[in-house]
Amino acid sequence: MKVDGRVFRTIWRDAQSGNVAIIDQTKLPHAFVIAELRGVDDAWHAIADMQVRGAPLIGVAAAYGLVLALRADASDANLAAAANYLATARPTAINLAWALNDMRRVLAPLPPSQRPERAFARAGELADADVAVNDSIGTHGLATFRELASRKNGRLNILTHCNAGWLATVDWGTATAPIYKGHESGLDLHVFVDETRPRNQGAALTAWELAHHGVPHTLIADNAGGHLMQQGKVDLVIVGTDRTTASGDVCNKIGTYLKALAAHDNGVPFYVAAPSSSIDYGTYAGTDVPIEMRGEEEVTHMTGATADGRIETVRIAPEGSPALNPAFDVTPARLVTGLITERGIIAANADALARAFPERVKAAA
Amino acid sequence: MKVDGRVFRTIWRDAQSGNVAIIDQTKLPHAFVIAELRGVDDAWHAIADMQVRGAPLIGVAAAYGLVLALRADASDANLAAAANYLATARPTAINLAWALNDMRRVLAPLPPSQRPERAFARAGELADADVAVNDSIGTHGLATFRELASRKNGRLNILTHCNAGWLATVDWGTATAPIYKGHESGLDLHVFVDETRPRNQGAALTAWELAHHGVPHTLIADNAGGHLMQQGKVDLVIVGTDRTTASGDVCNKIGTYLKALAAHDNGVPFYVAAPSSSIDYGTYAGTDVPIEMRGEEEVTHMTGATADGRIETVRIAPEGSPALNPAFDVTPARLVTGLITERGIIAANADALARAFPERVKAAA
Repeated sequence: MKVDGRVFRTIWRDAQSGNVAIIDQTKLPHAFVIAELRGVDDAWHAIADMQVRGAPLIGVAAAYGLVLALRADASDANLAAAANYLATARPTAINLAWALNDMRRVLAPLPPSQRPERAFARAGELADADVAVNDSIGTHGLATFRELASRKNGRLNILTHCNAGWLATVDWGTATAPIYKGHESGLDLHVFVDETRPRNQGAALTAWELAHHGVPHTLIADNAGGHLMQQGKVDLVIVGTDRTTASGDVCNKIGTYLKALAAHDNGVPFYVAAPSSSIDYGTYAGTDVPIEMRGEEEVTHMTGATADGRIETVRIAPEGSPALNPAFDVTPARLVTGLITERGIIAANADALARAFPERVKAAA
Repeated sequence: MKVDGRVFRTIWRDAQSGNVAIIDQTKLPHAFVIAELRGVDDAWHAIADMQVRGAPLIGVAAAYGLVLALRADASDANLAAAANYLATARPTAINLAWALNDMRRVLAPLPPSQRPERAFARAGELADADVAVNDSIGTHGLATFRELASRKNGRLNILTHCNAGWLATVDWGTATAPIYKGHESGLDLHVFVDETRPRNQGAALTAWELAHHGVPHTLIADNAGGHLMQQGKVDLVIVGTDRTTASGDVCNKIGTYLKALAAHDNGVPFYVAAPSSSIDYGTYAGTDVPIEMRGEEEVTHMTGATADGRIETVRIAPEGSPALNPAFDVTPARLVTGLITERGIIAANADALARAFPERVKAAA
């Protein structure tokens, strides 16, 4: 998408150096920094340190990491070693293993001399495939946005939680794809952005990407969404998903469940942008999804920019008060209006999910 | 309650100067500072700038503000002018108007020469009455805590939002009164404290007061409460209220409604500590309560302490992203298990409320 008028993806091959370039997301929203990945270690750290994050982007970044490894040494031994190494960068992300397996399947049969070039091409194909999936989610979602907009006068007000934006993918984003498509096609829309404590991905990433692309938006505390829905100020909620189970339960950033409850209580449609890669056909109930517990300093401390531009980390809690930091929660399928996939919008239940991606059901069996 | 072993109230008359002393809550949790109020302007600013906050404490602080006004000029004109002025300091809490009306009722019939002394005495009576009310709420609430504790093995886990603690009152707090009473009487309890964005009263005040009094607690992001309830880790929710209507709708800190929805969805009892002074018998529906909109910098900026002890304010949002900051929301009566008042626990409906405080209904008619 655009950053102040210039088109970017989140990851690309630098034509001159042959290295891989990324937007360093740890520097947002205070600085827009392009980082260069020169070798497999750079790629591993970019994923582990969350310079790139978001399940779809992590997968593509791992593929590019393998490219850089093979540029240095395209042997069978290094192909295996580098793939195993990269898989450890974020062990919970399903896309990481998926992308690395795809690369090995394509590259292993080739003679080492042909691997570097084919690896770059294949990583580019994976990146393009992610863009195509999100493009399709955008098209399907936009049809729903237009229908909701047609039932009211004036601007369509959308609420989103966390960052399922283009920064979490190669381009378009998942939850943001219909937002960008709507905005570009002249639909009068506005986005309420949950700041998304404790890591503040809404404030730091979603607000930033919407601002720099020019999409009208308003930042709100996570606490405010229920009130805005009670007041009729939200026409629909759309979020991403880290994992949707075979029964339609949606595991997503902590706090998503509370917004789904409020949407349900106020008759506000609650949509989940769910590329098929995020659907786990091997798990039925959301309660079976393991929930990552993260460090308490994410709750007790906050990083931002001072008025004179210094980046400072401040403690906002009393010294000595312990904190608990579950990173995800599960929204039961009964609260989900629809799952927006690359094959259209489907109901959040086992039958609809099985019908939509029968080949995935078969693979999981 | 205690601050590291020493007993404090949140507001008192300084015996030497005759001025009013408060704990400056804007400095917490990083510094414990006593501020002196010398005149009505100091009192107005202490309320408006939230050096004192919490509906019960605001009422008593306004009464002391009137004391300071009358010390300077005890005329009829100044009594009316100062009361009207103080009433503008905060818009939502009903206690402000209630306390000022009480003071005028007591003071207006007196000759101006007798007003200053009687005003100080009456403000002290209001402060003592607040303590007595909270003491009673604590006793009634604790009986329910004990009953819930008797149905399970192990520690009673309580979740609270914002600060309805002793810092929000003269002493005991409303929601915290049964917590302190339970803790002091040996009940094994633990409190999950919502950080309560955007002003962080949970992290800055509730965690601080529990820590300094020695009550086991854990700080969590506002987003986490629903997940903890799904996991069975919360035995009850207890919150305060800025205004409860005659039908039992509860206006309280933004985000309370989301926790009430989650409690209802998971069968977790949701209690509201509601001193009768916070019940507005002149308003029936929660939707008729005016909701204060506060400055957007509370959402976009955060203040805390750096590792080397400096207090810094940092921007956590992108420059140029607007923010919206509603300070309260309304929890419908249907989501409230019970209102814990100084006359016992009553159902959140018009009949029960009318029966509990018939004299208040008459006064509002």
